[in-house]
Amino acid sequence: MTYCVGLKLDEGLVLLSDTRTNAGMDNVAIYRKMFDFEVPGERAMVLMTSGSLSVTQTVIARLEHLADDPESGPEESVLKAESMLGVAEIVGRTLNQTSVRINEKMKAMKQLATASILLAGQRRGGKLRLFLIYPQGNFIEATDDTPYLQIGEHKYGKPILDRVVTRKTSLDDGRKAVLLSMDSTLRSNLSVGMPLDFALIEHDTFAITRRERIEAGDPSFTAMSEAWSQTLRDGFVNLP
Amino acid sequence: MTYCVGLKLDEGLVLLSDTRTNAGMDNVAIYRKMFDFEVPGERAMVLMTSGSLSVTQTVIARLEHLADDPESGPEESVLKAESMLGVAEIVGRTLNQTSVRINEKMKAMKQLATASILLAGQRRGGKLRLFLIYPQGNFIEATDDTPYLQIGEHKYGKPILDRVVTRKTSLDDGRKAVLLSMDSTLRSNLSVGMPLDFALIEHDTFAITRRERIEAGDPSFTAMSEAWSQTLRDGFVNLP
Repeated sequence: MTYCVGLKLDEGLVLLSDTRTNAGMDNVAIYRKMFDFEVPGERAMVLMTSGSLSVTQTVIARLEHLADDPESGPEESVLKAESMLGVAEIVGRTLNQTSVRINEKMKAMKQLATASILLAGQRRGGKLRLFLIYPQGNFIEATDDTPYLQIGEHKYGKPILDRVVTRKTSLDDGRKAVLLSMDSTLRSNLSVGMPLDFALIEHDTFAITRRERIEAGDPSFTAMSEAWSQTLRDGFVNLP
Repeated sequence: MTYCVGLKLDEGLVLLSDTRTNAGMDNVAIYRKMFDFEVPGERAMVLMTSGSLSVTQTVIARLEHLADDPESGPEESVLKAESMLGVAEIVGRTLNQTSVRINEKMKAMKQLATASILLAGQRRGGKLRLFLIYPQGNFIEATDDTPYLQIGEHKYGKPILDRVVTRKTSLDDGRKAVLLSMDSTLRSNLSVGMPLDFALIEHDTFAITRRERIEAGDPSFTAMSEAWSQTLRDGFVNLP
């Protein structure tokens, strides 16, 4: 499976994904699930994918192909769309078409290949936006009341987000929150695994202000994870 | 949905269930999911149920009917079975037969009614045992390495158990751990709801040593829940 999480904070978009892909328990591999599209100073977008790799790789390849094609227009290229809503529509349509095409072939085997996508970004003249795009291509958006969205194995890491994240959360605290949310998921579910991909799109920079790959055994992630375990255990012991 | 959790600790069995039952989002009700069978001083058992109410109510009714029947033998009555393993077999068989019978009728509507059961108990001359019985009637058992079992919405409340529970955990800490595990689940999933049913079977007492219903707004549960939130928030802020 997968775990990807995005926060839409006043100060920016905070994004984290794992990299584990598995076909059954005995066929495990590392695949990047975070992809970015950027026109520095004009727009910056990050996509995170969950679901069938055959669907998500095809979707990303088609989006990249159309973004690279000088002939493609604002209805086709995520780099030319006139708003983040327009980008969400392009991604949703591509995801839907790809799913339909692949599932026509899967039907004979009574299997279904589906995928979901988190889309985060900002375009000059627009606001920070964070969308969850469903396999059918429709989508929902993070709001001030619920400033985060998740795809994949979302349940283990939800309690910590529900407790600490609001739109006013700082970027540093947002980074801590998504890493702890991921840490809980990694500990409890084998289908989510290191390394992790982290990205940050700060408000009104129209750029991906930070990109980071956190490898297994990364000393600061390990230290944070251990400090959090200790905090939980101490808090547990001291609870009335 | 449901959340039920059981711990098999050296000092005893710690058991907690919620009471929310829903058919869709707009038909919510309170039903007890924890049931006990006891011959004080000889055996004490608690069952917790998850899944289709039509299945679980029928299973419990049949188990009670056979337990009350003076004619029933050790292969039929959970009060006469010669071991906890024998009880697990009776419960598994009853669950399987009930599921098969109900699903024959459901087939025409392409629906499926399934249920799972946690069975905890001890019989004089035997050890503390904790089983998870699957809809098909087969079962697994908690061990010293993994001293807890869950049914229903198990993911939200798993991280805290993974971090604090071992077989050496005291009964008081076990009670705290299952209540915190439930608290995380209640906060993040509407299909799990108050009141809660708590029970304790202390080692070698062959009795249900504590039974408790925790109502919505219960002052000590609320205080614990708030103290834990504060612990998490403080710990989060102080994390490097």
